[in-house]
Amino acid sequence: MTTEAISLDQLRTAIEGALARHLTPGPAIEPRLAEAMRYAVLGAGKRIRPLLTLSTALALGAPAAAAMAPACAVELVHAYSLVHDDLPAMDDDDLRRGRPTVHRAFDEATAILAGDALQALAFELLSTAPLPPDIRIDMISRLSAAVGAAGMVGGQSIDITATGKAVGLAQLERMHDAKTGALLCAAVDLGALAAAAGNETREHLVRFGQRIGRAFQVVDDLLDVTVATDVQGKHAGVDARLGKCTFPALLGVDESRAYVARLEADALDALRAAGITSGALHEIAQQVVNRNR
Amino acid sequence: MTTEAISLDQLRTAIEGALARHLTPGPAIEPRLAEAMRYAVLGAGKRIRPLLTLSTALALGAPAAAAMAPACAVELVHAYSLVHDDLPAMDDDDLRRGRPTVHRAFDEATAILAGDALQALAFELLSTAPLPPDIRIDMISRLSAAVGAAGMVGGQSIDITATGKAVGLAQLERMHDAKTGALLCAAVDLGALAAAAGNETREHLVRFGQRIGRAFQVVDDLLDVTVATDVQGKHAGVDARLGKCTFPALLGVDESRAYVARLEADALDALRAAGITSGALHEIAQQVVNRNR
Repeated sequence: MTTEAISLDQLRTAIEGALARHLTPGPAIEPRLAEAMRYAVLGAGKRIRPLLTLSTALALGAPAAAAMAPACAVELVHAYSLVHDDLPAMDDDDLRRGRPTVHRAFDEATAILAGDALQALAFELLSTAPLPPDIRIDMISRLSAAVGAAGMVGGQSIDITATGKAVGLAQLERMHDAKTGALLCAAVDLGALAAAAGNETREHLVRFGQRIGRAFQVVDDLLDVTVATDVQGKHAGVDARLGKCTFPALLGVDESRAYVARLEADALDALRAAGITSGALHEIAQQVVNRNR
Repeated sequence: MTTEAISLDQLRTAIEGALARHLTPGPAIEPRLAEAMRYAVLGAGKRIRPLLTLSTALALGAPAAAAMAPACAVELVHAYSLVHDDLPAMDDDDLRRGRPTVHRAFDEATAILAGDALQALAFELLSTAPLPPDIRIDMISRLSAAVGAAGMVGGQSIDITATGKAVGLAQLERMHDAKTGALLCAAVDLGALAAAAGNETREHLVRFGQRIGRAFQVVDDLLDVTVATDVQGKHAGVDARLGKCTFPALLGVDESRAYVARLEADALDALRAAGITSGALHEIAQQVVNRNR
């Protein structure tokens, strides 16, 4: 099964099927909590992170099945982070992926708990994945470090602390590398681990993930200032309203776009260094750069 | 090293030292987040869960060092759950262990993030514990299931849904078995796993954990109605104020006390079945039953 044989749409469908199965409500789970967890994960997500995991594994010659559990784990963590980031005490947003945020559709307590349960489910999934124990351990170690205080959660904390304050480019990048980049890098690295890749290949791929992650955020900032709410599926102009520093605010729109192009070139260079010259990872990189929501 | 050779106080000191080391602020972590995580975990906790993990391992002949990482992981998860349960959208409490709750001492966003990061750290600790990979995997699988939607978080969700409603004894027990019991059982089971215990021994010990967990909750409810705020270190009468169903409300104070005695006897019976006739686990059971805060 080669990368080229499977389209991103097919992979996305497979991911959504797997996520839905992992979120099937059982008798042991309080129905409202189960419903909120499904609402948070299933629906209109772009699935960039699990696509990165699957595409990396496929590009390195592993079957998609070997990377499906880590792909889902990464998406569960991403979904939990969105639920918590949207809370009134954080970004206080009421629209996500074109629908009311979880605390709006349910209530704040349920949103907090659904996020907490999704994080636990991500690690449960990894621990029971059909992979050798030492690979599962490496994945759990990698993902937990990426999403904890030194990674995703830490980045969100820097974001909140920095809101309303003057921030330089270095600090803005450090914040986004932690908040967004760490999980994207982990998504790629879990795919590499599923394919039992060597350290050198993993390093190139993590550089790819890091550059894509940074491009993703610059594009996000650009969309916030240039694209209307109805196209984005979330409120436009939120960054300015919240007093958040952005790449366009620091660099201007044109220089931000040029920066995205440099990051994309660097990302593709990293793929070449890993011996990957075409396929789904290239397609994802282009989608990240060219997306309009 | 036998169980009898180490006192609970010595074990508690060792646990607190290990927790403090795992929470040492590094340059990669936003200082306010790191401080909130330390505040949430270090301080006046009873450490019942990590003591259960260590004492179980010791009772089964394993060294304390083999169970220290899982003991700390269990306590980190417990601490995160307290931080989130105290939030305004949940129990809205401003006092915990005699000090302001995390969202009062810091702010709500930091409390949510500190809880999230503590959960990730628990799984990171387990994944890097100095134990064979298959045992680490079993521990992660066990803990993640115990604290997710079918366990601790699910129990909190049932609690919130049931607040202000008439609840029967069976539903109250189901709620507490999930909210409190699942993590206490996991605490014991992780100690058994650290000692590479067989399935039969593990089952007896999990029954011990389940009975102790239920006794813990009945005692908690009794303390809430019978002991003043300054002795408990948290507000008294909270359950009634929040409209929560309790064992004393359903059974009366005297029958609740008799129920605790039956649970204690059953817990000690389970220990005997596991071949454990004295030592730290007995002492913990007595402390759970006889505590005044």
